[in-house]
Amino acid sequence: MGALHEGHAALIRRARRKAGPSGNVVVSIFVNPTQFGPKEDFSRYPRPFSADRDLCARLGVDILFHPDAAAMYPTGFSTYVQEEEVGMGLCGGSRPGHFRGVCTVVLKLFHIVQPDAAIFGLKDFQQCMVLQRMVRDLNLPVQMIFAPTVRESDGLALSSRNQYLSAPERAQAPILRAAILEARKAWRGGVTAARSLLSVVQKRIAAAPLARTDYIAFVDAATLQPVTTVRSGDALALAVFFGKTRLIDNLIFS
Amino acid sequence: MGALHEGHAALIRRARRKAGPSGNVVVSIFVNPTQFGPKEDFSRYPRPFSADRDLCARLGVDILFHPDAAAMYPTGFSTYVQEEEVGMGLCGGSRPGHFRGVCTVVLKLFHIVQPDAAIFGLKDFQQCMVLQRMVRDLNLPVQMIFAPTVRESDGLALSSRNQYLSAPERAQAPILRAAILEARKAWRGGVTAARSLLSVVQKRIAAAPLARTDYIAFVDAATLQPVTTVRSGDALALAVFFGKTRLIDNLIFS
Repeated sequence: MGALHEGHAALIRRARRKAGPSGNVVVSIFVNPTQFGPKEDFSRYPRPFSADRDLCARLGVDILFHPDAAAMYPTGFSTYVQEEEVGMGLCGGSRPGHFRGVCTVVLKLFHIVQPDAAIFGLKDFQQCMVLQRMVRDLNLPVQMIFAPTVRESDGLALSSRNQYLSAPERAQAPILRAAILEARKAWRGGVTAARSLLSVVQKRIAAAPLARTDYIAFVDAATLQPVTTVRSGDALALAVFFGKTRLIDNLIFS
Repeated sequence: MGALHEGHAALIRRARRKAGPSGNVVVSIFVNPTQFGPKEDFSRYPRPFSADRDLCARLGVDILFHPDAAAMYPTGFSTYVQEEEVGMGLCGGSRPGHFRGVCTVVLKLFHIVQPDAAIFGLKDFQQCMVLQRMVRDLNLPVQMIFAPTVRESDGLALSSRNQYLSAPERAQAPILRAAILEARKAWRGGVTAARSLLSVVQKRIAAAPLARTDYIAFVDAATLQPVTTVRSGDALALAVFFGKTRLIDNLIFS
């Protein structure tokens, strides 16, 4: 969706290495209307296109695909892809239609670009797993690569939406990562009940007065279905509002 | 779906010509469970595989793709493609989920086979138009080719389901084609109101005591939405039961 930051840059560098000198690296920049809800931030989502283009050029991108919405969704557009298990809870529960929009646009991009491999960031963990399922179910000949989340030095996951945060919100936002790491510490210390670990996270986040929790969940990493006992390979995922800004973060426990 | 008849043979011959001597012709034979409703004929649908295979061999097919359902729909399968305009009425209205199943399996087949072109029969007119829309909306790099309906000498459109008909049902089934041609004659004679043309069709079909109409409709050929005035390029589509057997037929007026 553009508004490229160091997290995107890491994906592009990974793609550049993967493609090698003779391969082509394609970046799509498209703020996709179908994955935003009617009350979400589609119109104010940042679109610093010339800075994005310059970054892509510096990173050796071969093709920058930057269509407009009318090209992607012509008059009478009526075909959607829906994944009905992995994408139902968590962000899919809070943002109805979001993953339908994501799956539809990613499938279109795959058909247009016909990539050998595609690279997505694990900050959007549920998105990665929904797309992985779509690729398997629809027999797409695309290798899916998921890259680790890039963070600020205080632990906040990089996101184009971080720029929406006020100074006090920004100061409190690293609590998400801190709460996740505290839960992992408790888990490594022997606490495996999702309920107990959940309250570790909740208590820590409650210490940030500007935080308003959307969801916190321990889930099976492949299906995104809730677990009651947290085992190695399961994931903690959360979404928390600071003012109108909704931030997400996650960790696979191991 | 196999149970190949002369209509399918015409599609295969067309594919053979299109592919040329160096191209590959792929035929899929798969009775797709997701396009059948719970009370439909999935389990009794004919599966004369060895005869189908022999016909494909005689017609110069290069690859016969004949997967089992567990390979196409592995455990946890959860991704579906839905077209939400062209496939909503007519057969889509009578058979909820039918075109969702068709779109999903055809998209899977396209990803597996990666054809340059795909050939479908116009007997399933709405299916052709739904798939055409899907291909456009999802930017699939596949040329869609639609081939004319092949008929018995008495006008009955070839269908694998014709073998379900009892002798008296079979004797009355050509009334569908006759009714369609009578409506076209009236239209060519100047009657353009869909309502009037509809009653021409209805009256003619009412002469067959074993016929029970599912739908009769005049529609825009691209969107499949009903029209009130029938213009050149519009289509008449109908579905009629003879006993438990549901037959469809159609004609584009010109």
